[in-house]
Amino acid sequence: MILCRVTGTVWSTQKNAHLAGHRLLLCQPVALDGETGEGASFVAVDRVDAGEGDLVLVNAEGGGARLVLNDDLAPLRNLVVAVVDAIDVDGEPTR
Amino acid sequence: MILCRVTGTVWSTQKNAHLAGHRLLLCQPVALDGETGEGASFVAVDRVDAGEGDLVLVNAEGGGARLVLNDDLAPLRNLVVAVVDAIDVDGEPTR
Amino acid sequence: MILCRVTGTVWSTQKNAHLAGHRLLLCQPVALDGETGEGASFVAVDRVDAGEGDLVLVNAEGGGARLVLNDDLAPLRNLVVAVVDAIDVDGEPTR
Amino acid sequence: MILCRVTGTVWSTQKNAHLAGHRLLLCQPVALDGETGEGASFVAVDRVDAGEGDLVLVNAEGGGARLVLNDDLAPLRNLVVAVVDAIDVDGEPTR
Amino acid sequence: MILCRVTGTVWSTQKNAHLAGHRLLLCQPVALDGETGEGASFVAVDRVDAGEGDLVLVNAEGGGARLVLNDDLAPLRNLVVAVVDAIDVDGEPTR
Repeated sequence: MILCRVTGTVWSTQKNAHLAGHRLLLCQPVALDGETGEGASFVAVDRVDAGEGDLVLVNAEGGGARLVLNDDLAPLRNLVVAVVDAIDVDGEPTR
Repeated sequence: MILCRVTGTVWSTQKNAHLAGHRLLLCQPVALDGETGEGASFVAVDRVDAGEGDLVLVNAEGGGARLVLNDDLAPLRNLVVAVVDAIDVDGEPTR
Repeated sequence: MILCRVTGTVWSTQKNAHLAGHRLLLCQPVALDGETGEGASFVAVDRVDAGEGDLVLVNAEGGGARLVLNDDLAPLRNLVVAVVDAIDVDGEPTR
Repeated sequence: MILCRVTGTVWSTQKNAHLAGHRLLLCQPVALDGETGEGASFVAVDRVDAGEGDLVLVNAEGGGARLVLNDDLAPLRNLVVAVVDAIDVDGEPTR
Repeated sequence: MILCRVTGTVWSTQKNAHLAGHRLLLCQPVALDGETGEGASFVAVDRVDAGEGDLVLVNAEGGGARLVLNDDLAPLRNLVVAVVDAIDVDGEPTR
């Protein structure tokens, strides 16, 4: 799982049927300060009611995504699985 | 899923039988502006009638690709799964 | 498996139910000296009672993680699988 | 699938039994011109009678490789799945 | 599969039970000359009696590793699958 900031939403009407009904969130990988971007944004399906601006954990793996969505035919691999409350580094909170 | 621009088509006659009948699209990963290239192009199978110039979402994962194609023996992992209509960042449309 | 230093802990209450009860460790990939950071940190589930400051091996793979956790629905792929005692390079211990 | 140039062959006698009888091709990822190298070479198993100098598509995924080889125990993930005849970019052939 | 030089060994007592009895080799990805390092080292399980200094092929994939080890619960993905005898590039041996 990697740390990401939710920065936006992607809209599509012409898409695979198994993506229907899922919110497609833009996720920007970030450093431990929760702000500094690291690498390219990607698109993930939300499963924990995350919203724009939230700091989240994203798991990138197709088998897990299909299990969580209970949909054997969902062609996706990035899933938002947690909203982060706090991060401790060396015993000290970083945010 | 990552954001890509469809930039071309690849043609092959000497290939695995399970790739027959599928369009092979050249996909260039792009930034959120939908234009700036990010990293190397790759080849994906189209499943949503995407065409050259379209902004699309590509999922990279073999299990999902085989399920969507309903072909247990298809040796591929990149699938075009959606054509993007719009992207909102911080509540504002970017394109 | 890659060599990582455990640098912290991530806390989350709003998360996928299958992540409940697992410690989420911040892992920093490191070079063979066990100190020099290499690439971005990520989050892994602990299964060997690793703690902050430990040098560990992390396996990144969803199928293996679900098997080890004995939970077919756990949406995660990074698992701490060993605490490193020693590393020999060219027959000489490096730490 | 990514575009590669076949640049050589790897020979091994001391190897996993399930690799026996397969040609191990050196593959160099290349740009759309089919010449400019992009990233490190790797080794793939040939399944379409590709030879040195051919421009090919390589799929990198273990499940697909085992299915195509019809060998559940083959420990490999890179498979040459097509020899490329032509690439069109923006409606124009590039080679 | 990628080309690696075996550079060392990792020792661990506090580890997942399914890693017991396997040698954990430090593997340095190398260029076609078999010497120049390319990217970070990682840890792989040996299955072909490779030793320090050997040039080897490593496959990185969890499903294949578990099949080869005949252990459905082994949480690892990097497996040494061949010791390299020779590499031909453009019809000429490189080593």
